Order: sequence, then C-alpha cells, then structure tokens
Amino acid sequence: MNIYPFLQAVRDKRPLVHHITNWVTIFDCAQIVKSFGASPVMAHAPEEAAAMTGIASALVLNIGTLTTDVTDSMKLAAVAANQKGIPVVFDVCGAGATPYRDQKSLEILDAAKIGVIKGNSSEIARVAGLAVATKGVDAGHVAADMREVARSLSAQRACTVVVTGAEDIVAGDGKLFLVRNGHPMMANVVGTGCMAASSIGTFAAAAPDRVPEATAAGLACFEIAAELAVQKSDGPVAFKQQLFDCVFRLDEKQVESLQRVVTPG
Amino acid sequence: MNIYPFLQAVRDKRPLVHHITNWVTIFDCAQIVKSFGASPVMAHAPEEAAAMTGIASALVLNIGTLTTDVTDSMKLAAVAANQKGIPVVFDVCGAGATPYRDQKSLEILDAAKIGVIKGNSSEIARVAGLAVATKGVDAGHVAADMREVARSLSAQRACTVVVTGAEDIVAGDGKLFLVRNGHPMMANVVGTGCMAASSIGTFAAAAPDRVPEATAAGLACFEIAAELAVQKSDGPVAFKQQLFDCVFRLDEKQVESLQRVVTPG
Amino acid sequence: MNIYPFLQAVRDKRPLVHHITNWVTIFDCAQIVKSFGASPVMAHAPEEAAAMTGIASALVLNIGTLTTDVTDSMKLAAVAANQKGIPVVFDVCGAGATPYRDQKSLEILDAAKIGVIKGNSSEIARVAGLAVATKGVDAGHVAADMREVARSLSAQRACTVVVTGAEDIVAGDGKLFLVRNGHPMMANVVGTGCMAASSIGTFAAAAPDRVPEATAAGLACFEIAAELAVQKSDGPVAFKQQLFDCVFRLDEKQVESLQRVVTPG
Repeated sequence: MNIYPFLQAVRDKRPLVHHITNWVTIFDCAQIVKSFGASPVMAHAPEEAAAMTGIASALVLNIGTLTTDVTDSMKLAAVAANQKGIPVVFDVCGAGATPYRDQKSLEILDAAKIGVIKGNSSEIARVAGLAVATKGVDAGHVAADMREVARSLSAQRACTVVVTGAEDIVAGDGKLFLVRNGHPMMANVVGTGCMAASSIGTFAAAAPDRVPEATAAGLACFEIAAELAVQKSDGPVAFKQQLFDCVFRLDEKQVESLQRVVTPG
Repeated sequence: MNIYPFLQAVRDKRPLVHHITNWVTIFDCAQIVKSFGASPVMAHAPEEAAAMTGIASALVLNIGTLTTDVTDSMKLAAVAANQKGIPVVFDVCGAGATPYRDQKSLEILDAAKIGVIKGNSSEIARVAGLAVATKGVDAGHVAADMREVARSLSAQRACTVVVTGAEDIVAGDGKLFLVRNGHPMMANVVGTGCMAASSIGTFAAAAPDRVPEATAAGLACFEIAAELAVQKSDGPVAFKQQLFDCVFRLDEKQVESLQRVVTPG
Repeated sequence: MNIYPFLQAVRDKRPLVHHITNWVTIFDCAQIVKSFGASPVMAHAPEEAAAMTGIASALVLNIGTLTTDVTDSMKLAAVAANQKGIPVVFDVCGAGATPYRDQKSLEILDAAKIGVIKGNSSEIARVAGLAVATKGVDAGHVAADMREVARSLSAQRACTVVVTGAEDIVAGDGKLFLVRNGHPMMANVVGTGCMAASSIGTFAAAAPDRVPEATAAGLACFEIAAELAVQKSDGPVAFKQQLFDCVFRLDEKQVESLQRVVTPG
C-alpha cells in the first residue's frame, strides 16, 4: 500500500478535525492533529456540538472521561457528521472496565453511523459482545482471535474496526490491513492510544472515500514517527515530545522505507 | 516603550492570576503564569468563582471549550473582578466558529466591564460585528483593516483590544501599539494563543493602571521568548518546552535588545 | 527506613490507581503513575465512579478544580474504596483559598475514611481548623508548628497526614517521618504537588498495610527523581520532562544512596 499520498493529502487540505474527547489527553489529541498539519478543534457544549461538526471534515469521539452530558453531545455531533457525510472515529476508551462504559459505547454506536471503531483488544472485544475485562484504560487479557473479532464487528456494524497492539488490525470494506509499525515505548506514555485515534481522524478527514486505507496510513505514519522518536530520546516523556516533532517532520522517504502495512494473503 | 519594568513588576509582586479557561490548554495557561514568576489558579465552580477572584489580582477568561455552566461562572467572576477593581482579560477563542460562541462572547462582554478583549483577526472581527468565519479556533480570512476594527471596538467597549497575528495590534485608551515580535513556529503548537492571553493577564495584574502598555509588554515578552526558543529547538513541541523556559529566564538585556513594540505615527 | 522495596512492589504489582482529580494537571497525575510502572485511570462520572474504584488498588482525590458534581462523585468513589478496603489519598488542593473549598474538603473527609490527607502547610492547617489563608493553590504563611498540626490531625482523623514543603512531614499510626529530598525547582512547575499525591497513591496501592511508610517512600522516590532531573535540565519545563523520566529509570542505588527519610528522635 502506498502510504505517503495520504499524509500529503492531510498537509495539502489542512482539514478541521472536531473532537469530543477526554480531559486527560485533550491537549495531546489537539497537538497530534496540528503536528500532522491539520487543524484541531474541541467543542463539547450541546448547543454547539452539531454546529462545530458542521464546519469540520471529521469527528473524533473518545469516552476516556465520559459523563452522560458529554456523551449526549457526542451523539448530537455524530448525527451532524452523518448529515454532512464526514467520517466519525470512535475511540471506545475503557470499554470493558465498567458497565456504564459498555452501555454508553453501545448507545453511541446505535445513535449514528460510526466510520471507525478503535480500541485495544479488550475494548474491541467488549464492544463486540465478548465477556472480557479492561484494566481501566489498559488492555486486559483476551483469548479470542482478534482478527476475526475485527472482521466480524466490521461486517456487523458496516464500519472500519481498529484493534491496536504490537500489530494493529484494521478491518473495513471487507479488507484487512495489519500495521506492524510502532514501538513498545509507546505503552510507557499516557496518551498514545488517544493520539492514534486522532491520527486516524485526521487521515480520514483528508480521504473520506477511502476510510480503511486512510486508517491504516494514519496509524502507520504515527507509529513510524514513534520508531524515529525512540532513537532520539532516553525516556518515555522525552520520547513523547520527539514523537510529536517526528510527526511534524515526517517525510516521504521515511514513510515509504519504514512502513510495514501488510495485507494477509 | 520601556518593556522590562513591566516584567520586573510581575516578578516582584508575584500576583495571583485567576483563570476560567478551556480544558485543552489549561495546563499551558497555568504554567506560563508560573514561568513569568506569578501564581496561577483555576477555579470554575459557580460557588467559588467570585471568592477566588476576590483574592486575585487579575482574571483571565477563555471560551475555548465553553459550556453554559462555565460561562455563567465567568460572568460571576467578571462581576467580582469589577467590584474589586482588577483587570479582566477575555480571550474570545473560537468566536466566529459557531453562533453559540458569538452569543456567549457577547453575553460575557455585556455582563461586566472587560479590560482586554483578545483574539485572532476573525475572532475579533466577529465580536466587532463583522460577518466573518473562524476555522474552529484558527483565524479565517478577514478583508477588514484590523487596526481600524481594533480602534473602533476599543472605543465602543471602552477597553483594550488585542488582535494577534504576525503583527499584534493593541488598541486602548486611544493609543495603538504594534508588537512585531514572535515567530511563525508559534502557529505549529496548540496553546500559544491561550498562553498569550494568560501573559497579558499576568502583566495587567502587576500594572493595573496601565493596561494597554502592560498588554503590549506582556505580548512582547512572551514573543521575545518565542524567538529565543526557536533557536534552541528543532520541532514544535521542543520549541514549546523552550518557550516556557525562555520566559522563565528572560532578562533585561534580551527584552530591551529584542523588543519591537512600535507606535504608528 | 528501607525505601526501594516499596518501589519494587509498585513495579511488580503494577496496580491500577483510580483518580478523580483536577483538569489542570490530570495528564501529569496519570503520567507519573505510569512512569512509576503502575496503571492510571481517571473516571469521574457518578454512574461509574464506584465501579471503577472497585477494580482499582487505590483512589486519589484532588479538589484543584472542584465542582459540586465532581465532589459528589468523589464521595461515591471513596465509599466504594472503603468497602473494598483500598487506600484513599486526598489532596486538599486550595483548601484555605475559599470557604467553598474548606466546606467541600470537610464533606469529603466526613463522607468516608480517608487514608492519607496531603497538602501544603496552609492547606493542612486550614483542614485542621486553623484560621489561615491559601494563595490560590500556593501555600500561605502559617505560624503553627506543622509537625504538631500533622500529628494532631492524624490522631483526630485516624489517618496519615502529609505536609509538603522543603521538608515533607508524614504523620501516621503514631509515627513521624520527615522526607528531606526534593529541590526548590519543583516550585517553578505547575503540577508537582498533584504528582506527589499521585505518587503516594501509587505506593499505597502496592503496600496497603503500611500506608505511612509507603507514603514516605513514594514522596522520597518522587523527590529523589527531582534531584536527579535538576542535574539534567536548564529550566522548569525541561526539568519536568526529566522528572518523569528519572522516575521511570529510578534504580535501587539511586534510591538508597540519595534517600533522606528520617524519623525524629
């Protein structure tokens, strides 16, 4: 797969990416969008959630610190995104940790057409209906074959499904991509999961007709930057700073020589 | 204009600067106040917004992630600031992006005397009543002469008006200052606009009788630090870290040799 | 006192540490937990606050940007923590700044058994009933002997009391520890106080039967990392990045050679 044209499209179009997200990593989500060359906005008031979506090119939802008020705004924004025809990325952060998160995840999935559902293995397994537990927002143990879970949930919900991990799984439109970029250091920093969802939203905003491919490309670019950042840092938070700046500087040669996006036979 | 005495006053007085601000850059707003040598506090509960303002030396309001509840607290705090006679700085973040932001901006402006209205060109143009659009929180195109818009809004609202950009415009008390410091790198980082408002609030807190001059001085010091930070960094987020620390270390020689605050003839 | 085994226990057990905290430093609180090798989660919705506490090993509460809704969730979570028998750490951030903070602090202290009350001198003095004022969230002047205030409050509330400062005081179970690690640079960064509370929560999660000792050990490890970080940085925000990464890399030799935890005779 040719990855770099997707990054080039982000930098050319500079799309506005609306977020309703969590309070822990809200800065990180905004900055990763900006580092990719796009424009982030975060607006969760119910009175403007739909209007702000109406001027955006994608919507990213993340339930990391959800409340009922904020999930209601997410539903309004998602419906507005459907009306405008822009992609909605939903990070089911913490699904499987409490019944409330499971319930709200399903409510959002039922309230509007979600373009991309993204989570770690236990989050996605939970949304798919399996009886697994998530350790707060960190993945719990899942016995299932996650490629099959992703394919099945993708078919059931008619959307792209992303399972993050050492190998990311992207299932959508009957296709399957495996993104084998990234580095274990990412797990030592708070926010990399949320930033991955925002990266997907940014790439989907610039290529709304090829969401599964844009999703794989966004993940690959983010994780290639992570590989480069590890080489330039000596600890997790130094790594995170470099991650943003390696995204900002990412060039065609880096992307095409380092990308490991594969389609299993 | 002599800039350094304003910075010296901040460091000598260490004023408490109360904020009701947005959730994306709330840390950045607090840290820039602290880096200047002052003391930040953020308290948005309606039960204490006025009381916290009562022990502060300035109030900074920012509607980046506004909700109706929080804007109600902003009004309470602004009225308390008026009663105490301390400056209120209002960052009209995202005005022009949605009708709700426009409405809430005007409500806050009408609820109390605002000392400094600050925004980018499309935000300020919108608050001044022009029919322009803001791209989320990034400036949209404005055809108007922003110096005239700033002068006019300043006269109409009896306040200081700041239009940020490559050249910042500060209009207040019938005077006009142009701040020609800063660097394009600032636009690659989330938070520099909000930090500029907090810088203004910090300087206004230490010189409440000379708000237009303190505003220009605060902007100049913040942006001189940005120029120094660019030289010490190789990417946007590395730049942002250095920006804070260059503010912390800013000395008289740097300020007076680098400042480019001019008064047009 | 032998400090390193407490850090080793954190890294071995990787406990989940639930927070209901403030919006300024919520990322910092999460990251310091992660840097120590544990797993943070932040969930403040009343519908899940108790359930999330139910899968955690400690609960950290911080009223830095409190509202009534969020303090209600704190009470629910604290009661759930008591039912499960896990430690509750309460950072009385800003107590003494407004009557509302004083009232809410006392309500939380009365709603459940708090294991560790942590604050600066004026915050703790205020919670102990003395007539002192806090400058926002920065310590105000206190004439009292804080060792005696800590001992007395510890006895009255049957909990561990921590007074942070150049010398931290830890009083609990009739014992008194003084933690003489740390560096004045910590006061130039927003978030070090909140991160100290999260460090305590992380260590208490891994040693729930020795809370006063775990508290002293957590503070000491955090502040030893601060001493190391100062040597590797040239400004406050550079220092903060190093602080996280020095925590991540902290080893037995550093801990045991640098720790200055003393028990007064």
